[in-house]
Amino acid sequence: MTDITVFDTTLRDGAQMEGITLSLEDKREIIARLDDLGVDFIEGGMPASNPTDRSLFSSEIELAHSKMVAFGSTRKPGVAAADDAGLKALLEARTEWVCIFGKAWDFHVTEVLRITEEENIELIRDSIEYLVKNGKKVIFDAEHYFDGYASDRTYALKVARTAREAGAEWVTLCDTNGGSLPTAVSDAVEDTLLETGDCLGIHCHNDSDLAVACTLAAVDAGARMVQVTVNGLGERCGNANMCSVLPDLTLKMGYDIGADISKLTKVSHAVSEIANVAHDSFMPYVGSKSFTHKGGMHIDALLKDPHTYEHVPPESVGNRRNILISEMSGRAGISKKLDEMGIEPTEERVGEVLERIKDLEGKGYQFEAADASLELLIRKTCGLEDVPFGIPAFRIYIDEIGDNSIKSEASIKVVDANGNMEHTASDGDGPVDAINNALKKALSKFYPKIGELRLIDYKVRVLDERAATAAPVRVMIRTTDGKQKWTTVGVSTNVIEASLIALVDSMKYAVTKDGWTA
Amino acid sequence: MTDITVFDTTLRDGAQMEGITLSLEDKREIIARLDDLGVDFIEGGMPASNPTDRSLFSSEIELAHSKMVAFGSTRKPGVAAADDAGLKALLEARTEWVCIFGKAWDFHVTEVLRITEEENIELIRDSIEYLVKNGKKVIFDAEHYFDGYASDRTYALKVARTAREAGAEWVTLCDTNGGSLPTAVSDAVEDTLLETGDCLGIHCHNDSDLAVACTLAAVDAGARMVQVTVNGLGERCGNANMCSVLPDLTLKMGYDIGADISKLTKVSHAVSEIANVAHDSFMPYVGSKSFTHKGGMHIDALLKDPHTYEHVPPESVGNRRNILISEMSGRAGISKKLDEMGIEPTEERVGEVLERIKDLEGKGYQFEAADASLELLIRKTCGLEDVPFGIPAFRIYIDEIGDNSIKSEASIKVVDANGNMEHTASDGDGPVDAINNALKKALSKFYPKIGELRLIDYKVRVLDERAATAAPVRVMIRTTDGKQKWTTVGVSTNVIEASLIALVDSMKYAVTKDGWTA
Repeated sequence: MTDITVFDTTLRDGAQMEGITLSLEDKREIIARLDDLGVDFIEGGMPASNPTDRSLFSSEIELAHSKMVAFGSTRKPGVAAADDAGLKALLEARTEWVCIFGKAWDFHVTEVLRITEEENIELIRDSIEYLVKNGKKVIFDAEHYFDGYASDRTYALKVARTAREAGAEWVTLCDTNGGSLPTAVSDAVEDTLLETGDCLGIHCHNDSDLAVACTLAAVDAGARMVQVTVNGLGERCGNANMCSVLPDLTLKMGYDIGADISKLTKVSHAVSEIANVAHDSFMPYVGSKSFTHKGGMHIDALLKDPHTYEHVPPESVGNRRNILISEMSGRAGISKKLDEMGIEPTEERVGEVLERIKDLEGKGYQFEAADASLELLIRKTCGLEDVPFGIPAFRIYIDEIGDNSIKSEASIKVVDANGNMEHTASDGDGPVDAINNALKKALSKFYPKIGELRLIDYKVRVLDERAATAAPVRVMIRTTDGKQKWTTVGVSTNVIEASLIALVDSMKYAVTKDGWTA
Repeated sequence: MTDITVFDTTLRDGAQMEGITLSLEDKREIIARLDDLGVDFIEGGMPASNPTDRSLFSSEIELAHSKMVAFGSTRKPGVAAADDAGLKALLEARTEWVCIFGKAWDFHVTEVLRITEEENIELIRDSIEYLVKNGKKVIFDAEHYFDGYASDRTYALKVARTAREAGAEWVTLCDTNGGSLPTAVSDAVEDTLLETGDCLGIHCHNDSDLAVACTLAAVDAGARMVQVTVNGLGERCGNANMCSVLPDLTLKMGYDIGADISKLTKVSHAVSEIANVAHDSFMPYVGSKSFTHKGGMHIDALLKDPHTYEHVPPESVGNRRNILISEMSGRAGISKKLDEMGIEPTEERVGEVLERIKDLEGKGYQFEAADASLELLIRKTCGLEDVPFGIPAFRIYIDEIGDNSIKSEASIKVVDANGNMEHTASDGDGPVDAINNALKKALSKFYPKIGELRLIDYKVRVLDERAATAAPVRVMIRTTDGKQKWTTVGVSTNVIEASLIALVDSMKYAVTKDGWTA
């Protein structure tokens, strides 16, 4: 028996986030990840509302640890529980557990549902009793609980008590609009516990940037189930982020939960990939920058003792430390980097790499974020450069002659390591796209995997604003091959050249990295 | 006198975020925005550490509301205060206020600084006394205060007391590693207040996803200064987000602060643009999705009463509900703008301008920061367009053939308002520079003042990262004629075309603006 029950609602409330649509296959993949992580409950969706969720619940899902939950609402006003389509769909769902929501805010009862407060109490009681009588275990989500509590405490408490008396195993207090402060949540939870006993859950939204804090405050006050979503996905500003709540509860507050948080970083990235949303690099605990360190003094202290500048060990959540290479970070950082790359960090090598980095940084390069360019530079400086291809010549044409559409075309010659030449050309949406297309086209002849590369970000930064269009520009390009992501950098006064340097580095990295032994 | 003093550290601690580099011009622009917002203190940077910050502080910055603060550290161990280069740089900074940090965690004192606890106390005392004696008002940032308090309460309290006794006006308790819980922050603040009296600030990092909550908890416990950054920019997972802290403090907790939070959304977007980072759509309060509603039932209830599903009115932070409803708040702004431009804001004109803006924003344009492009668009839509020149044709050549230097050349035909044609060509450092040079060369024939224009910033933002090099890009160009500065915008999948649109707008603005009657 753990202290805290973890209820994941990524597939239901998380999927409400704008821009997210999860297919049946997506949902199944996320369920497998969550089960492996070890959450207690996985809310899969609302079988009454759409065919995907109906299919999902039409057969039993065998899981190692988690229990599936089907979501719905209390019966419609004026319809008997046994005749209600929503409750029927819940009974048909092949799950032991169901979760239904009902209203706890008097204002919503009278102004939105337009029924009396007593009728709403009956809806809640009937619906839960009916589900329980028909063999379901019920979790009751009290919508807008904290707004309700602030508006009419007695009524909100009555809703919670009614749900419990009707047979709900858990009563979840929801901060639906995300407007509550942790102190208010804490007070309401303590007060409500006196009515319901030890069966309270908490469900928070992040509109005040306090979803995690409110969740922890509720637990502090005695709530024993946390409803969370992976990466804080959810409507508007999202829900309480599982990837923050679980480490805070375990590493900071000492609670025992069933989930293995050392898998969190992986789960977090996987859900972003599946939901096709960018992964926030700066996310607490699981972001790729969460344990990134910059600045010489920091790095020295960190290498003496990671505890100096790290609140928890990155491994505890399956993440890793990342030391940025920059002018300031000095020999210790470079030495560590060489070591990670499987290259012996001799005094001489470290010195040469540092020299080269300083030289390029003076020209406007920045290797902090450009991991792939940095690794290529290190290999080159250490005499380990691969030269998979060369570009003896290229040309780009851009013109508009009286027809109002600008045309871009690039021609290119590429030579592989054995001296084979490919001469080709391509159009593009702009000159960078044209040269990217031509380069990929040429290289695909020698390296078919080039076809799988996808550029996922392209940034341009002007380095010396006073020089304006004649200023050196820094281009950073982020690429993925579907498995890994990397960043490369190029600097030139010519935006095309800077782009080409970064593009070439990226493709060089793609075709050589698998051959490196680390 | 307000309840809470707002200390912005976007330009110092915020700029520590990976990937952010702020030029002098960027910093000045952000300072102007923060002053207009009305924060109390703006920490501009560390004059001892880099030339940009030294220039920034080399002259006094006249502000309407805010006070500039220069940042540094306590003197180096073994160096007298009067001989310390860092303290010297602070004295030379043309600010009334300075902020220095010192260590409050015994572990850091003995393991990182490698001095005795008493020596550290002396560093702090000396440095503050020296600055005060030389006429500075001092804010002392107690680094790692909460870790220090947990490790050796007596020593942490002694550090805070020493700073106060030495003459610091404010003592800021910093959760440098971002690992503290709100309850721990609250306890330490209450306890420390007994030592220092009412002069405590709070500075939190977001590594546990609790920076905002810890900041509020400190204020609840009696701290009266909040150190925050716009959009929560900062090292690793960022700092406490001003855009959440200020509305929480005012709208939720009822505190009086000097800043006008109805400007927050604008400031938040402007800082993202200037720092060239993507704006998080899901950010609480100021994100473009923060007040976006999905799902029929929600919308119905919302239209009955916005209070049903909105924790605060979006206008309170200068945000908007959604495109349909926002038109109304948009109208007022456009109407005001027309008025400022000396154009009568008739219903019809405002409607047409709004329509045109919405259309272009749908294509990726953004007019908030592009003042000159917006004015040109308004004049055009209102039938007041000047057509000082046209560009019937241009061509750009970029090539590298075996000699390792990429050449860019542009040829262009420009026709003035009287039909006179100028056909010319120019080389350039890259294609954008070549076309800029050719355009300026041609236009100088007709408008000599074109020769005085200087482009002071050139930004490129990829709008849909998944489309990579074929994605639409937005180019923002900032130009000055020595007296005035203005910004123009262009959008295209072709970076050259987007640049050209912005360049042409800028030159059009330069040669016509003086003829407008406002």
